[in-house]
Amino acid sequence: MRTRAITVFSLAIMLSGCVQSTAKKPSIPLSPSLTDLGQSSPALENYTQKYVDNDLWKRPQLSPRDRSIVTIAALIARNDQVELPYHINLALNNGVKPGEISEIIAHLAFYSGWPSATSAAQITRSVFAQRGITRAQLPQADVTLQPVDQKVEQARSTQVANSFNSVSSGTVEFTEKAVFGDLWRRPDLAPRDRSMVTVSALIASGQVEQIGYHLNRAMNNGLTQSQASEMLTQLAFYAGWPKVFSALPVVKKVFESRRS
Amino acid sequence: MRTRAITVFSLAIMLSGCVQSTAKKPSIPLSPSLTDLGQSSPALENYTQKYVDNDLWKRPQLSPRDRSIVTIAALIARNDQVELPYHINLALNNGVKPGEISEIIAHLAFYSGWPSATSAAQITRSVFAQRGITRAQLPQADVTLQPVDQKVEQARSTQVANSFNSVSSGTVEFTEKAVFGDLWRRPDLAPRDRSMVTVSALIASGQVEQIGYHLNRAMNNGLTQSQASEMLTQLAFYAGWPKVFSALPVVKKVFESRRS
Amino acid sequence: MRTRAITVFSLAIMLSGCVQSTAKKPSIPLSPSLTDLGQSSPALENYTQKYVDNDLWKRPQLSPRDRSIVTIAALIARNDQVELPYHINLALNNGVKPGEISEIIAHLAFYSGWPSATSAAQITRSVFAQRGITRAQLPQADVTLQPVDQKVEQARSTQVANSFNSVSSGTVEFTEKAVFGDLWRRPDLAPRDRSMVTVSALIASGQVEQIGYHLNRAMNNGLTQSQASEMLTQLAFYAGWPKVFSALPVVKKVFESRRS
Repeated sequence: MRTRAITVFSLAIMLSGCVQSTAKKPSIPLSPSLTDLGQSSPALENYTQKYVDNDLWKRPQLSPRDRSIVTIAALIARNDQVELPYHINLALNNGVKPGEISEIIAHLAFYSGWPSATSAAQITRSVFAQRGITRAQLPQADVTLQPVDQKVEQARSTQVANSFNSVSSGTVEFTEKAVFGDLWRRPDLAPRDRSMVTVSALIASGQVEQIGYHLNRAMNNGLTQSQASEMLTQLAFYAGWPKVFSALPVVKKVFESRRS
Repeated sequence: MRTRAITVFSLAIMLSGCVQSTAKKPSIPLSPSLTDLGQSSPALENYTQKYVDNDLWKRPQLSPRDRSIVTIAALIARNDQVELPYHINLALNNGVKPGEISEIIAHLAFYSGWPSATSAAQITRSVFAQRGITRAQLPQADVTLQPVDQKVEQARSTQVANSFNSVSSGTVEFTEKAVFGDLWRRPDLAPRDRSMVTVSALIASGQVEQIGYHLNRAMNNGLTQSQASEMLTQLAFYAGWPKVFSALPVVKKVFESRRS
Repeated sequence: MRTRAITVFSLAIMLSGCVQSTAKKPSIPLSPSLTDLGQSSPALENYTQKYVDNDLWKRPQLSPRDRSIVTIAALIARNDQVELPYHINLALNNGVKPGEISEIIAHLAFYSGWPSATSAAQITRSVFAQRGITRAQLPQADVTLQPVDQKVEQARSTQVANSFNSVSSGTVEFTEKAVFGDLWRRPDLAPRDRSMVTVSALIASGQVEQIGYHLNRAMNNGLTQSQASEMLTQLAFYAGWPKVFSALPVVKKVFESRRS
């Protein structure tokens, strides 16, 4: 019941500012309102406890922090509003920094579409308010952008322009100036984490075509094969089995191509 | 802040007229609030009445009970929260048992992702409460699992392991112990119905790759070709025409392969 | 109405007391609640202002009216409920007629599924009510249907029947009588705009397979290549980059095939 209260509470803040209590709770259970779930599906309650809380989240192959980032990315990509408040709170408890969450939202505006980010921003705003996290603690609009590997960037940029300038020069233009010239270069979310967020969002929204490029980029940015592998396990639960099974053959190819 | 006010205002209008009447009606109209739809789209109101209520749902090729299962699966896969309460009620009126709905939700935790199931569980909880359906009437967490056809299971399991153990052993592990070793073996939703739910969810979320396997499984589990065919008609309306047109070539191949 | 009451009762409680201001403002900012976004993501606030409001929406390659149609179609296809009220208002400000919005909703019932349309109809109903737009001003259920090009229609119809009558005759039947025999022939949304809505929805929901047919149809119906190209730019922001990058190769092929 407590987690449900958190969710509704967040929404209430978001909707009107008609909120009285701001009592902080020290810890958050791994899944929202187990007992509530059991009222309509005892099997779901049981599975959540048995496979998600006491198994998946405790596996050592991926840290709780990384699992939280993967999960948040999947939820935002799905435009979820029911579990997100809970998982933003859990992410903060798991060591994801407020500034990283802030950057994940901006990142997914481009990779999942503006509506997903707007919605996530509203929910996160109330979680931040509840925890006393202020705007001043977040990465500001203007930051010193990280340098890029000119050779890698040049290759990517040329390939995109050659392929699609004749189809949608506007898309290509924003890809250069906004996505790769700006977003990816912001310093408060590591490139490895941006890649993990991107791949998670791609898998969660069934965008198989782009997984290859971004998984390679993720591994170039420091994501290990073992972490990538376990990211899929995490996503099986949060994006559903079929989305992960559609991704598996692509991931397999990437792993194999990097080995040879 | 102003635009936010608009949003909330819209919702409040939408909601306010509904909170007066709590009188129970003996039957439920086939679609939610026809007149409401007509206030912004008379064409939609008309089409809902003409094609959905008075045509689709009355076609004899699929029973109202099966149509309800297909529809609920599609709605949960879409993470829908607007039509779902109505359709949970309709399903109960059409003879879907509370315990079957409970199992459908747990089933789709795996096939549509945990967030879809969590959201559906919350909505279903309030429908059950309103109708006096208690947790004691639902299949409990611990039930006697159905035996499996060892040969069929062995083949499936070996194929999954051979293909993907090297890519994500965690996913494979949970596929075995949770999905096929546990979920599919729960007795309160027939394998044929689990398959119908799975295929409906796959089509509704555009997961074309897995339709072949699961449609074959559905037909092995007793779904007739005529029912599968009409399931697509039902889904055209609830998942949208494009999702069904993407599925049609795969379904065609399955039908043809089973004939020869 | 009873089921509506169920859904919404908890929401209503949650929302009640939030509806203070009903004052109408003469204009609407290009994005919802910029400052709100900044509370959790200053980067998102900045990007929204810099790239969306002051850049994308001001590009001359597509009119604000067309951008609004594309955006609304994408939002409805995504089943979005957070940005839609704002964008329905903006669309009306940009010259999209109430009757056109009404027809877009009915159109997307078929192309994005009934739940998307139901949800959009509810939201639009309250925007219309707020602006004093009444049902009498909207295209009625019975209108004089536009004639069709018999040769073109015959070819399409024969192809669909030959491909899929053996798979799902029900789907084919409704495709003929409802979608092409009725919906597309309603006069209050131009065929060019119906096509633009259809292609936008297909891209926003990742339905790559049908883009080719419908983009050709759109261009036959008067959408220029330059407009189609910029439609993709608009969708990059509202459906997300990956969805557009999956569409680009198909669009490229259509452009090339029409040139030769």
